[in-house]
Amino acid sequence: MKKLNVGMIGGGFMGKAHALAYAGMPMFFWPAPAIPHRHTIVDVTEELAKDAAAKLGFEHYSTDWREVVNDPNIDIIDIVTPNNTHAEIAIAAAKAGKHVICEKPLALGAEEAKTMLEAVTEAGVKHMVAFNYRRTPAVALAKKYIEEGRIGKILSFRGTYLQDWSADPNSPLSWRFQKKVAGSGALGDIGTHVVDFARYLVGEITDVNAMTKTWIPERPIQTGGVDKLGTVKSTGDVPKGAVDVDDEFITMVKFDNGAIGSIEATRNAWGRNNYLTFEIHGEKGSLAFNYERRDELQVCFSDDPADAKGFRTVYTGPAHPYGEGLWPIPALGIGYGETKIIETYDFFKSIVEDTEASPNFNDGYRVEAIADAILESAEKGEWVSLTKNVVEAK
Amino acid sequence: MKKLNVGMIGGGFMGKAHALAYAGMPMFFWPAPAIPHRHTIVDVTEELAKDAAAKLGFEHYSTDWREVVNDPNIDIIDIVTPNNTHAEIAIAAAKAGKHVICEKPLALGAEEAKTMLEAVTEAGVKHMVAFNYRRTPAVALAKKYIEEGRIGKILSFRGTYLQDWSADPNSPLSWRFQKKVAGSGALGDIGTHVVDFARYLVGEITDVNAMTKTWIPERPIQTGGVDKLGTVKSTGDVPKGAVDVDDEFITMVKFDNGAIGSIEATRNAWGRNNYLTFEIHGEKGSLAFNYERRDELQVCFSDDPADAKGFRTVYTGPAHPYGEGLWPIPALGIGYGETKIIETYDFFKSIVEDTEASPNFNDGYRVEAIADAILESAEKGEWVSLTKNVVEAK
Amino acid sequence: MKKLNVGMIGGGFMGKAHALAYAGMPMFFWPAPAIPHRHTIVDVTEELAKDAAAKLGFEHYSTDWREVVNDPNIDIIDIVTPNNTHAEIAIAAAKAGKHVICEKPLALGAEEAKTMLEAVTEAGVKHMVAFNYRRTPAVALAKKYIEEGRIGKILSFRGTYLQDWSADPNSPLSWRFQKKVAGSGALGDIGTHVVDFARYLVGEITDVNAMTKTWIPERPIQTGGVDKLGTVKSTGDVPKGAVDVDDEFITMVKFDNGAIGSIEATRNAWGRNNYLTFEIHGEKGSLAFNYERRDELQVCFSDDPADAKGFRTVYTGPAHPYGEGLWPIPALGIGYGETKIIETYDFFKSIVEDTEASPNFNDGYRVEAIADAILESAEKGEWVSLTKNVVEAK
Amino acid sequence: MKKLNVGMIGGGFMGKAHALAYAGMPMFFWPAPAIPHRHTIVDVTEELAKDAAAKLGFEHYSTDWREVVNDPNIDIIDIVTPNNTHAEIAIAAAKAGKHVICEKPLALGAEEAKTMLEAVTEAGVKHMVAFNYRRTPAVALAKKYIEEGRIGKILSFRGTYLQDWSADPNSPLSWRFQKKVAGSGALGDIGTHVVDFARYLVGEITDVNAMTKTWIPERPIQTGGVDKLGTVKSTGDVPKGAVDVDDEFITMVKFDNGAIGSIEATRNAWGRNNYLTFEIHGEKGSLAFNYERRDELQVCFSDDPADAKGFRTVYTGPAHPYGEGLWPIPALGIGYGETKIIETYDFFKSIVEDTEASPNFNDGYRVEAIADAILESAEKGEWVSLTKNVVEAK
Repeated sequence: MKKLNVGMIGGGFMGKAHALAYAGMPMFFWPAPAIPHRHTIVDVTEELAKDAAAKLGFEHYSTDWREVVNDPNIDIIDIVTPNNTHAEIAIAAAKAGKHVICEKPLALGAEEAKTMLEAVTEAGVKHMVAFNYRRTPAVALAKKYIEEGRIGKILSFRGTYLQDWSADPNSPLSWRFQKKVAGSGALGDIGTHVVDFARYLVGEITDVNAMTKTWIPERPIQTGGVDKLGTVKSTGDVPKGAVDVDDEFITMVKFDNGAIGSIEATRNAWGRNNYLTFEIHGEKGSLAFNYERRDELQVCFSDDPADAKGFRTVYTGPAHPYGEGLWPIPALGIGYGETKIIETYDFFKSIVEDTEASPNFNDGYRVEAIADAILESAEKGEWVSLTKNVVEAK
Repeated sequence: MKKLNVGMIGGGFMGKAHALAYAGMPMFFWPAPAIPHRHTIVDVTEELAKDAAAKLGFEHYSTDWREVVNDPNIDIIDIVTPNNTHAEIAIAAAKAGKHVICEKPLALGAEEAKTMLEAVTEAGVKHMVAFNYRRTPAVALAKKYIEEGRIGKILSFRGTYLQDWSADPNSPLSWRFQKKVAGSGALGDIGTHVVDFARYLVGEITDVNAMTKTWIPERPIQTGGVDKLGTVKSTGDVPKGAVDVDDEFITMVKFDNGAIGSIEATRNAWGRNNYLTFEIHGEKGSLAFNYERRDELQVCFSDDPADAKGFRTVYTGPAHPYGEGLWPIPALGIGYGETKIIETYDFFKSIVEDTEASPNFNDGYRVEAIADAILESAEKGEWVSLTKNVVEAK
Repeated sequence: MKKLNVGMIGGGFMGKAHALAYAGMPMFFWPAPAIPHRHTIVDVTEELAKDAAAKLGFEHYSTDWREVVNDPNIDIIDIVTPNNTHAEIAIAAAKAGKHVICEKPLALGAEEAKTMLEAVTEAGVKHMVAFNYRRTPAVALAKKYIEEGRIGKILSFRGTYLQDWSADPNSPLSWRFQKKVAGSGALGDIGTHVVDFARYLVGEITDVNAMTKTWIPERPIQTGGVDKLGTVKSTGDVPKGAVDVDDEFITMVKFDNGAIGSIEATRNAWGRNNYLTFEIHGEKGSLAFNYERRDELQVCFSDDPADAKGFRTVYTGPAHPYGEGLWPIPALGIGYGETKIIETYDFFKSIVEDTEASPNFNDGYRVEAIADAILESAEKGEWVSLTKNVVEAK
Repeated sequence: MKKLNVGMIGGGFMGKAHALAYAGMPMFFWPAPAIPHRHTIVDVTEELAKDAAAKLGFEHYSTDWREVVNDPNIDIIDIVTPNNTHAEIAIAAAKAGKHVICEKPLALGAEEAKTMLEAVTEAGVKHMVAFNYRRTPAVALAKKYIEEGRIGKILSFRGTYLQDWSADPNSPLSWRFQKKVAGSGALGDIGTHVVDFARYLVGEITDVNAMTKTWIPERPIQTGGVDKLGTVKSTGDVPKGAVDVDDEFITMVKFDNGAIGSIEATRNAWGRNNYLTFEIHGEKGSLAFNYERRDELQVCFSDDPADAKGFRTVYTGPAHPYGEGLWPIPALGIGYGETKIIETYDFFKSIVEDTEASPNFNDGYRVEAIADAILESAEKGEWVSLTKNVVEAK
């Protein structure tokens, strides 16, 4: 069976998730499209890289991502670094003829994303942006219902992503609060997942009208560079640095098929953890999903008998998308790992079968264009049309 | 014990709810501020009025609301008629020196509402607009938490009111779909309840930015005038009439205390019944409420121990607002009736104690001004400020 | 329209619930079978009785229940007193030719219940035992599904009733903790409601095998006789009295149709308020209900499509049992009051239409026999068959 | 870093779960106690074994488990075969000086389990029985609360395990329906997980009183030996074979610390998937858990303020047991895989640190004794005491 060598750039939380996916993918989807081989991992210091290789099961390690990108043994470059480094690595990887999977958001903005899209297109390599939440079987089931017309023409979409890990003003000034590294705040970090849901399930967004807020304008500077996502609290007299990204945004959206909607995200919602939700109303039914209870999809069909109409709680399992490859009984449990395993499966399939991956850098670019439009709209206080923002890539 | 005679104008679904409240209020809140006496009910025909009196326990009936409004025996006029009749009746009642309780929305728009507010103010009578949902003990508990500072400064408010009774294009052209009778659609009918929540719990709204949609542009004309709320479906070749109000709206809102939010309402959400919800995030905690599970308030406090933090499901009972008067065990169950019983209690108390009722016609007027601004914003596609819309009543 | 005069014996929490039902029943079910007239209320002192009459809207009051029972103007005797007084009053009422509705549990045990059943049978009056929870529309909907065969042959029943109002050892020694007044503890007070569900939904119980526990063996003696259901806590050095009833029981049950099940009740379950639940598995589907969310019935049908199978959350409304008479939109909300209004409707209908009421004293008697068997089984530590316990009434 | 070579006997669903855990454990818990090396996998045919090795990432494969058990390179034998083979393999492994992890239920009954316990004890090897559900962080959190006294003395335990994969009479006659292979039915397959919860969280069970039912007495014989857990339905004229194990059981239990409880399990509950639940009431609080929503633990503390008392929904994350090693944000999601990763971590830790694993073969043996007592009780219709069933192993 064919083996594909992976060079992974970055060894943090996302590196762990991707490494598990490389190890697990063939166990779930067999015969696998190809066997992922954890060939080389890159981190910023020799010590970190060596440790990451041992921990995550990579054969080699390096501190020089350019070397790895250009290593002829490598088939795939996997980018799990902070946002501001995505473009340079991805473009270099494309030029070296490597397939590229890149964590989201794809770039610091649409302009940068376009250069990445152009690079992979020109190189003819496969490319994927890692919006893993759409791999959740319940989300894929929603897509299936919609495509089969089971809830009819879609009228409206409501999406939220609520977390609380940065609600405490003493949680540290992670790179996720710095515009130059992250591009944007809650918008890029979590809101783009909702935008991905909206485009995946409903269709292209044409106009946005948004507000943003930065609730906590400065935070304690953390001594190490590590991204602890709010779990480490500062105490005492710690110097603080400015937050220059959004903590929260709300946007209204219009879709090109006539549907309307709203998208909201915040990392300051006490009690919400990974509350990534959507509710979709169609002419013949409704769907509701909450990632915090991700084994479940809620669906209501309008043609159910009058005395037995209501939302069904469908637990995804073997009868649903990806289900044959997962666990034999619904609710044995989809975790974060499984979403990444499915993502890896789909990416490897696109490589081996030479088909377009989805979501790919074009999707990533369009999400960036929408994110840019949201920021522009919030600043100007008016509707911003995407038609002027999205320029087709060469 | 003092008795107050009620003249009720209208004998439909709302008449029933109010009649139950008059009968039940002293049973729950004892000693009652005063005993409500169901004196006279008015309906459009002699037959309907007579039947309503028998059914709802009124001593007299009439087909002439003016006569009742001017009857010296009557202390209170209760207006439970379609929206386009509220102003004329309320103003006449005020001029006759009667206290007035009026169903929501107060009027067909802010201008009309202002005339009503001025009339009751000038007459010096007590006035209330029947936003009964804020009487739900769980909503009153949310208010209590907020006032006591238990969730800190409020950052954001998300409110929705989703129903499905008009999702079927064959549900009849009730007066609720006609601008000349209803003023607006989902906005006035249900959205104003969310606006009332927002003002009650968070504070005054200063700016709105909205979209509206009419999903079903025409509906079967119904032969009778009765408002069956979608339960009667037309079949076959029935003539149709135009819907000229909104089926759905989404608005972003800004509050004068710096909080932001979104409000959404639709009557076309299959599977949602009376899904009136809010979620509020504060600096020290969060609140969530869904009227479909109205005995419960969800609250999360940020200062809970790290290993036991999360939303608490508080079932309201004797330890909560209005609880001493209700049922002795939480979850014996608050129904629609109980919300109206509490409303009646509060209105009677304001009369007997000579205090300002809440929400009163000033609140009703401000809600109308916000509703007008939402429609204006949706039409213009831009933010509309309330400062220019709300003119203080004389 | 025919009017029926009610004499109500007792003016506590249950009196309030019944009074509301008499006032409200015709408002909901119109034309009503007959108009309930709140004629006379009885309480233990003149002061209490007078106050109860004013509060609950009765025309007369008395401190002598025998006088009321024998008053020729009275049509119906409504017994809402502590359990140990039910038999004497009911038997006297029957002898006086009055229809009788009696709160549950019917008696202190099966033997006493049988004398009551025999009295009403001999007198030829209508009789009902007030297991109001089966009137919840969602429970009636479960019954409808079962009768229509929509979940097939029933295999198993799991019922629980969990409360926490007596979990605190400082909650007072209400009559509900005294065998001579209450007959039993959690069993009679709340467990009998579950037994009623089991018989109503599944069928006759033939065998039980039970355990009981008294977790808190003594409680503070309360100075007044009032039954505050745990809301009043004692502090300091209060004399204590013995609890001689069960705080909790668990029983396994066998039904005569082959189904099996378990029933459990406790008043010491912190965080459970009125957690009256059942789950029923049939050959073709399942049902689940929780009174704390009483507007909802959960139902799963085995013949749903494989990719859309799961529990449906059905909110009861106009399309469901009793729905036409209730509120026009599901989830406007069923409260405790509505269950009592439906109960009153059914009882009045049985009187006017001269049909057997349900559940009647025969049901009440059989529930008592099952309760006796549960106590016997718990004491002996073995299965107890109902065939030897239930002696058909004369 | 130390490496431990694993020989895995069996390559089905459980083999996949364990293989993922070996790959993933060091990624989550770093530094790992030791690195698991997937050395050799055994399956029944050369073809199956070869395929399993490729799929699950084992270096070698074999069809002879004895050879593997005696291979000096192997440190750990992992038994993921049908129940009737556990004892022979485990005893051989122990004799060969290997550490042993064995899937549940440990054996076909207590007697057999005791021989296994004696073998591992005598050999001085580490041993674990794979009750992975207690590794769910929310279950471990429940244990932590209990040990810290936060819900006080435990009064009662209610556990259920409800599934529906065998509710269809056309689902095939898997080995799980055959006593000679499985030992028992729902009891051993799923009920033992609840028994493990009960012992883990509450304490030793001293007495049981049970019922069992076989609802579907015969099922279609499946042509292959594969265990498809109900997903493959037979159609047409397929020969049927007898089911000689329980489809469902209910038992009452007594604990040696005075608590009482009930345990119920069925695989015929339409709509329930992996509905493994417990509810525990203590003198100072309550706990509730449902594996279908496994990221969450419900906890109620009696000393919460009166106006804010209720079940908290705690989403497990970094602040909870095992949380530092898992995902950085609660509700990123615990799946089945994560429970097995934790199990592997704990087993490897016990080996490297030379401590007793938990749950070990002694626990597995005691669970078997309880299961035997449940079957005996159901047959005799009476309480069975564990004191006479459990003979301390040599």
